[in-house]
Amino acid sequence: MLNADVKAWLDSHRDEHLAGLCELLRFESISNVAEPDGCRPCADWLAARLRGIGFAAEVLETAGRPCVVGEFHAGVDLPTVLIYGHYDVQPPDPLELWDTGPFEPTVRDGWLYARGADDDKGQLFMHFAAAEAWLAASGSLPVNLKILLEGEEEIGSPSIEKFLTAHAERLAADALVISDTGFFAEGQPTITSALRGLASFEVIFNGPDRDVHSGLEGGMLTNPINALARLVAALHDDDGKVTIPGFYDDVLPVGDEEKAAWRQLPFDEADHARQMGTDALGGGERGYTALERNWLRPAVDCNGIFGGYQGQGEKTIIPASAGVKITMRLVADQDPGKIVAAFEKFVAGHTPPGIKSEVKVRHTARPVLLATDSMAAGAGLDAMAEAFAVKPVFMRCGASVPITEVFQRVLGLDAVMLGVGLPEDNLHSPNEKLKLSQFYDGTVMAAAFLENFAERFKA
Amino acid sequence: MLNADVKAWLDSHRDEHLAGLCELLRFESISNVAEPDGCRPCADWLAARLRGIGFAAEVLETAGRPCVVGEFHAGVDLPTVLIYGHYDVQPPDPLELWDTGPFEPTVRDGWLYARGADDDKGQLFMHFAAAEAWLAASGSLPVNLKILLEGEEEIGSPSIEKFLTAHAERLAADALVISDTGFFAEGQPTITSALRGLASFEVIFNGPDRDVHSGLEGGMLTNPINALARLVAALHDDDGKVTIPGFYDDVLPVGDEEKAAWRQLPFDEADHARQMGTDALGGGERGYTALERNWLRPAVDCNGIFGGYQGQGEKTIIPASAGVKITMRLVADQDPGKIVAAFEKFVAGHTPPGIKSEVKVRHTARPVLLATDSMAAGAGLDAMAEAFAVKPVFMRCGASVPITEVFQRVLGLDAVMLGVGLPEDNLHSPNEKLKLSQFYDGTVMAAAFLENFAERFKA
Repeated sequence: MLNADVKAWLDSHRDEHLAGLCELLRFESISNVAEPDGCRPCADWLAARLRGIGFAAEVLETAGRPCVVGEFHAGVDLPTVLIYGHYDVQPPDPLELWDTGPFEPTVRDGWLYARGADDDKGQLFMHFAAAEAWLAASGSLPVNLKILLEGEEEIGSPSIEKFLTAHAERLAADALVISDTGFFAEGQPTITSALRGLASFEVIFNGPDRDVHSGLEGGMLTNPINALARLVAALHDDDGKVTIPGFYDDVLPVGDEEKAAWRQLPFDEADHARQMGTDALGGGERGYTALERNWLRPAVDCNGIFGGYQGQGEKTIIPASAGVKITMRLVADQDPGKIVAAFEKFVAGHTPPGIKSEVKVRHTARPVLLATDSMAAGAGLDAMAEAFAVKPVFMRCGASVPITEVFQRVLGLDAVMLGVGLPEDNLHSPNEKLKLSQFYDGTVMAAAFLENFAERFKA
Repeated sequence: MLNADVKAWLDSHRDEHLAGLCELLRFESISNVAEPDGCRPCADWLAARLRGIGFAAEVLETAGRPCVVGEFHAGVDLPTVLIYGHYDVQPPDPLELWDTGPFEPTVRDGWLYARGADDDKGQLFMHFAAAEAWLAASGSLPVNLKILLEGEEEIGSPSIEKFLTAHAERLAADALVISDTGFFAEGQPTITSALRGLASFEVIFNGPDRDVHSGLEGGMLTNPINALARLVAALHDDDGKVTIPGFYDDVLPVGDEEKAAWRQLPFDEADHARQMGTDALGGGERGYTALERNWLRPAVDCNGIFGGYQGQGEKTIIPASAGVKITMRLVADQDPGKIVAAFEKFVAGHTPPGIKSEVKVRHTARPVLLATDSMAAGAGLDAMAEAFAVKPVFMRCGASVPITEVFQRVLGLDAVMLGVGLPEDNLHSPNEKLKLSQFYDGTVMAAAFLENFAERFKA
């Protein structure tokens, strides 16, 4: 059970923690745009906040947006916990669909609305509150605590591997906690044990060297939009299977037991379709449940497409070019490097006469499987059970937290994914939100984890 | 031979005619945007210009952008010629590809650069110059002349049929001339005898009711971009044949003689590809030459595609929707109404679970075949031969001048297409231009036509 003073302190400081989080959410720390750069001021604020709690903290440079590193040394015989979070956020557009401004955090009906409320400012800030509570209520922490906050997670963490390598000694720890995932459903605490990897691309098809008249040239010139559509369509067969040669070669099978456990989860495909505002879950491969398609199977999705005239009315042209942004979600043990090579070959093979194609590889991340039987995982299960009063389950996740694989490889640490988001949080969408009760209970979970881990470590 | 005084007057007033055309080209009379409306001021200017020449002229309302009608009555026993042109233009974007402003007409190396220089302000203005020359040099015209200028040709002439019907008596004539086409090549005067029709659409695929996270939903939700790409790809088989059931049912065969004549035209497919800045003419159906594909065969082209994130970098979403703008070019005797119905059925059949599709029919135009053996066609051949000193040939055209079919049906007139554009004029593209020698010789052709037609009519 969490130290009673710490628990009481958290309970009596909810308003202060909410106010602090709202300050954090006001920074427009969008990482995928160069200007205006809202990342550095946000990093400065986070470091200052950590110093205010009693941490040694500083903003450290990377090749891109800076990292924040905070440290509190509690004792040489105590274990060390590393917390990772990211303070950058997705772009907020389309702006017109937000009920209140994405960077004007607003509480309505027990939810906090803002870009980053769940992903990941709200979740990283739970750990600030927990550390603050321990220090204020007990004068110290049960572990040595290191906090690492990244500013480029939403663009695939291009600088983090080099950063971790350079600061490996400083960031060494006995356990790693990441809170950047969510519950399977409200009331069902969940720890994520696998995340999909990623390979993202932009493909450009160039045709004529200018937009030309669709009447005077139609039937003669290869149309870059039509050609690009044929490429995109060719990526899947009629059963939803990806057709890129070798794509599935390294996909690991999953045991029937794990699949059977998932079938017990409260998930109704028709309900989920309704929540998404659509009438059916028609994506992915035939022969798998929707959860299996999202957790076990790789997926290839277009994120954006563009080309030719997009204004009102018409313009009767064959455009000079068209392009598409594609993200592939990969599962263990697909290798992003092999997938990139296979895709580049596929595009070349689907580039018709009259078109010059260009493939820009945006970034890649390996899929990851995490330990579920470690000391840290056990401490996490207990902390979550205590804070949310329900026994947690393990699940997988269709999204990518590329950093988990880098931590495995560079620091030798398997993360414990103590996420408290809910499926309805509108991640990456307009009206992103975080349920306040999840946030407050999450601060209790974060505080309890430190104590649980220290006890297991001692034992 | 054209009246020598008229010819001399045209030769000595080239600068004035160029200056007048430049004034006309400065109006931003783009019809496919509502605001800013550059159409009415342009129409007012044209009517004033006609009055300045000696015409009765006025701006007449339609359901959309206004028409200009000018009339000069030369004698009750004289035949009547109707000239049609359009003063609206295509949007100029992408603006950054213009060397000089699209609405800042500029002469370089014997070419006049501006949006509308060829299509169609430059060509309609040849007839202004011809009429002015006749009246200034001889005091009258050899025919009764009516000039009708439309402001909505580039958006498919939605108001013209009603307008022609309402003003049928006022616009009645013995011959119709339209200068809105071009030479097959410089030095090869050409009269167009068939034009493709058109059916244009916007198709929207709606998926989830908001953009959602591509990791958390990828493999479950139907992705509107991927689905739309499959629809577009399905429009053609691997041989470039359109797959819409019934699409080719009413396509008329063309005689081997006409096809053989075309093979004598100076057209090299590799050259044409190079001119378009590409390496091959890969569009359309296998088994036809490029000219046959453009002139004889229908074509289905995407003019624009859009959906999801289009900004810099990435946004890992499955978007709420995607859309495509499609133009079909139709040939005799395809019926646009049947084609629209077939396409709507095709889209419905290619809308997968999880998607709601919407087809907006933008506009339609019937394909047209024009008489090549009429009195007016003969007068046109002679006028063109005289002005350009080379015997003209008949050809077909892949583009659409929907008005030609409406004139056939409503006024019973087959147009003579006396166009003087050149293939390199960049119609609908950046850096649209008109060769000044074509413009000046075109004014001679326009003046000679009036005389030729009057003589043939009398005989």
